[in-house]
Amino acid sequence: MRFFSDNAAPAHPKVMEAIAAANRIDTAYDGDEWSSRLDGAFSELFGAEVRAFWVTTGTAANCLALAALCPPYRSILCHRDAHIEVDEAGAPGFFTGGAKLMLVDGPGAKVAPDAVSAAIDRIRKDVHQVQARALSITNATEYGLAYSAAEVAALGETARRHALRFHMDGARFANAIASTGASPADVTWRTGVEALSFGFVKNGGLNAEALILFDMGLAEEVLVRRKRAGHLLSKGRMLAAQILALLDGDLWLANARAANAAARTLAEAAGDRLVYPVEANEVFLKASADEAARLRSQGFDFYDWGAGEIRLVTSWDSDGEAVGQLAAAIAKL
Amino acid sequence: MRFFSDNAAPAHPKVMEAIAAANRIDTAYDGDEWSSRLDGAFSELFGAEVRAFWVTTGTAANCLALAALCPPYRSILCHRDAHIEVDEAGAPGFFTGGAKLMLVDGPGAKVAPDAVSAAIDRIRKDVHQVQARALSITNATEYGLAYSAAEVAALGETARRHALRFHMDGARFANAIASTGASPADVTWRTGVEALSFGFVKNGGLNAEALILFDMGLAEEVLVRRKRAGHLLSKGRMLAAQILALLDGDLWLANARAANAAARTLAEAAGDRLVYPVEANEVFLKASADEAARLRSQGFDFYDWGAGEIRLVTSWDSDGEAVGQLAAAIAKL
Amino acid sequence: MRFFSDNAAPAHPKVMEAIAAANRIDTAYDGDEWSSRLDGAFSELFGAEVRAFWVTTGTAANCLALAALCPPYRSILCHRDAHIEVDEAGAPGFFTGGAKLMLVDGPGAKVAPDAVSAAIDRIRKDVHQVQARALSITNATEYGLAYSAAEVAALGETARRHALRFHMDGARFANAIASTGASPADVTWRTGVEALSFGFVKNGGLNAEALILFDMGLAEEVLVRRKRAGHLLSKGRMLAAQILALLDGDLWLANARAANAAARTLAEAAGDRLVYPVEANEVFLKASADEAARLRSQGFDFYDWGAGEIRLVTSWDSDGEAVGQLAAAIAKL
Amino acid sequence: MRFFSDNAAPAHPKVMEAIAAANRIDTAYDGDEWSSRLDGAFSELFGAEVRAFWVTTGTAANCLALAALCPPYRSILCHRDAHIEVDEAGAPGFFTGGAKLMLVDGPGAKVAPDAVSAAIDRIRKDVHQVQARALSITNATEYGLAYSAAEVAALGETARRHALRFHMDGARFANAIASTGASPADVTWRTGVEALSFGFVKNGGLNAEALILFDMGLAEEVLVRRKRAGHLLSKGRMLAAQILALLDGDLWLANARAANAAARTLAEAAGDRLVYPVEANEVFLKASADEAARLRSQGFDFYDWGAGEIRLVTSWDSDGEAVGQLAAAIAKL
Repeated sequence: MRFFSDNAAPAHPKVMEAIAAANRIDTAYDGDEWSSRLDGAFSELFGAEVRAFWVTTGTAANCLALAALCPPYRSILCHRDAHIEVDEAGAPGFFTGGAKLMLVDGPGAKVAPDAVSAAIDRIRKDVHQVQARALSITNATEYGLAYSAAEVAALGETARRHALRFHMDGARFANAIASTGASPADVTWRTGVEALSFGFVKNGGLNAEALILFDMGLAEEVLVRRKRAGHLLSKGRMLAAQILALLDGDLWLANARAANAAARTLAEAAGDRLVYPVEANEVFLKASADEAARLRSQGFDFYDWGAGEIRLVTSWDSDGEAVGQLAAAIAKL
Repeated sequence: MRFFSDNAAPAHPKVMEAIAAANRIDTAYDGDEWSSRLDGAFSELFGAEVRAFWVTTGTAANCLALAALCPPYRSILCHRDAHIEVDEAGAPGFFTGGAKLMLVDGPGAKVAPDAVSAAIDRIRKDVHQVQARALSITNATEYGLAYSAAEVAALGETARRHALRFHMDGARFANAIASTGASPADVTWRTGVEALSFGFVKNGGLNAEALILFDMGLAEEVLVRRKRAGHLLSKGRMLAAQILALLDGDLWLANARAANAAARTLAEAAGDRLVYPVEANEVFLKASADEAARLRSQGFDFYDWGAGEIRLVTSWDSDGEAVGQLAAAIAKL
Repeated sequence: MRFFSDNAAPAHPKVMEAIAAANRIDTAYDGDEWSSRLDGAFSELFGAEVRAFWVTTGTAANCLALAALCPPYRSILCHRDAHIEVDEAGAPGFFTGGAKLMLVDGPGAKVAPDAVSAAIDRIRKDVHQVQARALSITNATEYGLAYSAAEVAALGETARRHALRFHMDGARFANAIASTGASPADVTWRTGVEALSFGFVKNGGLNAEALILFDMGLAEEVLVRRKRAGHLLSKGRMLAAQILALLDGDLWLANARAANAAARTLAEAAGDRLVYPVEANEVFLKASADEAARLRSQGFDFYDWGAGEIRLVTSWDSDGEAVGQLAAAIAKL
Repeated sequence: MRFFSDNAAPAHPKVMEAIAAANRIDTAYDGDEWSSRLDGAFSELFGAEVRAFWVTTGTAANCLALAALCPPYRSILCHRDAHIEVDEAGAPGFFTGGAKLMLVDGPGAKVAPDAVSAAIDRIRKDVHQVQARALSITNATEYGLAYSAAEVAALGETARRHALRFHMDGARFANAIASTGASPADVTWRTGVEALSFGFVKNGGLNAEALILFDMGLAEEVLVRRKRAGHLLSKGRMLAAQILALLDGDLWLANARAANAAARTLAEAAGDRLVYPVEANEVFLKASADEAARLRSQGFDFYDWGAGEIRLVTSWDSDGEAVGQLAAAIAKL
């Protein structure tokens, strides 16, 4: 029973149907009927005019955004545990042409305004030190915490004060929205976010992610950078169709709610073992090596997360019965 | 009736079936069952041990290869009309970190050994001029010409003499093989090619291309660069499955033969109008603006190609009836 | 007797004195008394407020300017024989992060407005092709031709029409000004040039060049890029002092006039052998291998320039007697 | 009385004489008589065949070395307070094409083998995390500590065990050698260092630093990268002559001894106020804002170094009387 990654889940049947329907002759690259509907679909979702680009990975979405927001000779503030710092093989350095990531700390991989200001204050304002130009946060965070609209607003205000551009890595944006109930607008453009990596692959997509630009002025540069990075697929309609299928009838939200609900079931069973509050679809538990082995012997598949901790990830398709069995097994530990 | 691009064609039904079959829980990224079969499948096809990587675009395949073959401070020789020079938005400069493309001429976008040697001879061998490190050819070329094994061998010999690494852009490799009847081995590693971008998207694939390394020593670097460029998809099995489906029973070859046959039908009708011999699935014709308009008025969709020329591209799925109608219309011009 | 390069000449005695005078304790980097006078000195010379930066090479001046004018994903138009294309080891690609040079032709390495427009017209205006963002010309050109103010104005107008930023490589700017009698303002900012690499090393300096920004908005970026490229010297006063010494009493102009006069003496002796009009301090002559050998046997040192041509370069310190002897020897050939 | 930076000191009279002597016609770039003697001079000093390159800044020396030692997709381990991390405006990212710096801690900016191993151990050995390729240490460190030969040997052994290339930033290498009495060979190539930035500008030079390659295989790449970064000066003889003058009769060592002696005088006066042992020419003292103000009111010029600390830097030309007065003033605080 799989609890090791939402990346390992299958695509949703509606997504597969959409791909099949798009599998016919149409214009190559992004001139097709589906791609041309993306801007409108996301503009409606966010209640504002936005530009939307399909890409195939969260790394591409994040790094295209960062390259447009930060020149090579500036730095990007992010959490020490941020995916862009830890798990993208240095892609931000590649896409930006050598910009630095400047790291801040905070529990649960969450960035607080004070930590941002303190990091800025530590930089001597001269030509010898790299000055910061952008802030990137992950929502939900790498430890499954969701930002409230008020928290994003405080960060947005801090970013403006320090003249920082503002990016959100939303690989699990759907789970964050499903968890907080915030409106997509309230945790993005209304509170200062200028570019959002909106994840679909972990939430029912096959291989499509969206990069949403709230600052339309970045669009032309992002278009060119996407091509230049080899991310302009010739049958782009197959990506656009996936995203449209997940937006249709808010399937993305339903999927995220299902994953979150499964995670909450596990969280309730875990009680004091929880390392962080469970606000999305990831559950981090204290568990000894022996306890982890006991769970695995019952057929549950998951990752260790440092010494004495394990990570359980639920998905849009998490099987209720398996979740129940795992919850029971945890409770029994 | 579509003759404007093989990129616009649908994916082959077998490919769609393979994607559906791979749409189940499995390891993320490239640790899955399908991805792990790629090396073996291509090693068998090429009769030698190779390493194979899925990517989603030809640009990514080309530029990952070039970055591994050429450091930022050297140059890559290619034809003035090569896709990497003309149609990849400067991606080689991005992936390599600023290496130059050094251009050679030749009819039909074909590179001849003499042109390579002449280009090398023009470079002063000092630190002020950029020295060449790699050669990249396209097979079939951008004008639909296929290299014979003897031609590739002569280029391979030239490359060795000038200490050039050797890359082949095979966006239409299948069409070239189908046309010449050469063995895949004879036009690649046996004659000096060290990396091949093996195209599948134009030939029945949905969004999977393969980068084949005959020099296994490049594999680790390419693996890291692929991730760093945002090209390591989390559900990579969906790409590997497409490629395996096209390799299975030599479907890739059957598809290419079908496209080539359709192109030959058009070529025969075109007679003296042909700008280049038709050795793959592209047909370049002399046609006045008026003649082009007449064809379009009969429902044929294609691109102008400079003044007084048009380009017709056939695909694995080209409809025999439409091809016949177009051939007749051309003959009647 | 040296006629092979003005780079090989010594520094002017006034420059050596200025260095000695600046060799005392002062603020490091560019906070010193001399560096802080540069902006003012050049603003006076150009009759407009400018920002001036010392660097140690023309390559650094050119490429810092180009990096500020052109993003990685655009291209820079220049002549096929431009120093930035031919003799800077790919530095533009390095500093810009992979921008392309797009080449135009024209006699004597001179760029004409029509050639610029034709090059722009050849670019398809889509995301697959690299769009141009900047124009760079060399004044005096690599073949010793000087642009008139009217010529620069026509190029400036062309640049504006195509939304191109405009850079001038003035490694021999002094020789061009001395030759045409144009005012420095008239061949730069008044006619659209936004950044000028103003050469001093070939004209009496020891190791200081100046980068002049007419677009003050580029200054902050250039400051940071200079440091980031390792070009912020800790004893920058030693560079600023050289430049100030050459500006003082228009020594730069006197030096250039001396070099130009020597070149004219050679040109008059050369008559029909001249390949280009002599408008600066370089003389390109038709001369057979035998004739070149005869000149060398008389003690004259110079470079061959392709088959059947030689290049003679005069300097601020060219010895009148040696010039006379060479002129006589040429006349006698 | 200047104690704020050794960068602010004048060049040594012997250096000025050498520049004057080299100020005559000779081959441009690095083909001259002085440049061609560098390899031999340093090979003698290090007792091994080395390649030596002049550059004008420590940043250039460091970053050319790092670019040759580490590809864009790997990381370089260094101390959190290393100059390359803190004071080079992100130059390592620019020169390497985006390699990361991976930071280790340790008192006095010194890197210990255990810290290196621990940093390596923290990296997951997969394609998602950036793997380390090089180690860079500063000798003397940014806080004025010198490495013994045994300490370098232990680091060299650690580097080999983890397959790390090994670079030493020797901006104050002379001071370190003068302090420890180690042989230059023993703290470099004999203990594993492959490239050394050997500083001269802080120690009597005008604007010349040396990059020493103990791994001769890096030489061709460094030559090209130097040119490509705009660091191949056309009158390179003026740099080579400075370095040769400082090597002559071990003037570099005498200069460093003088600076170190002055620092020791200050250190003795400082007693318990010392933050670090004084092993080179930098003295870090605890001093309240009020105490710092008192010293300044007596004419001493220096930097604050965080809250409650000041930094005093001595130079080759530190005036004995001024040093004595400062020592007395410190003792009196």
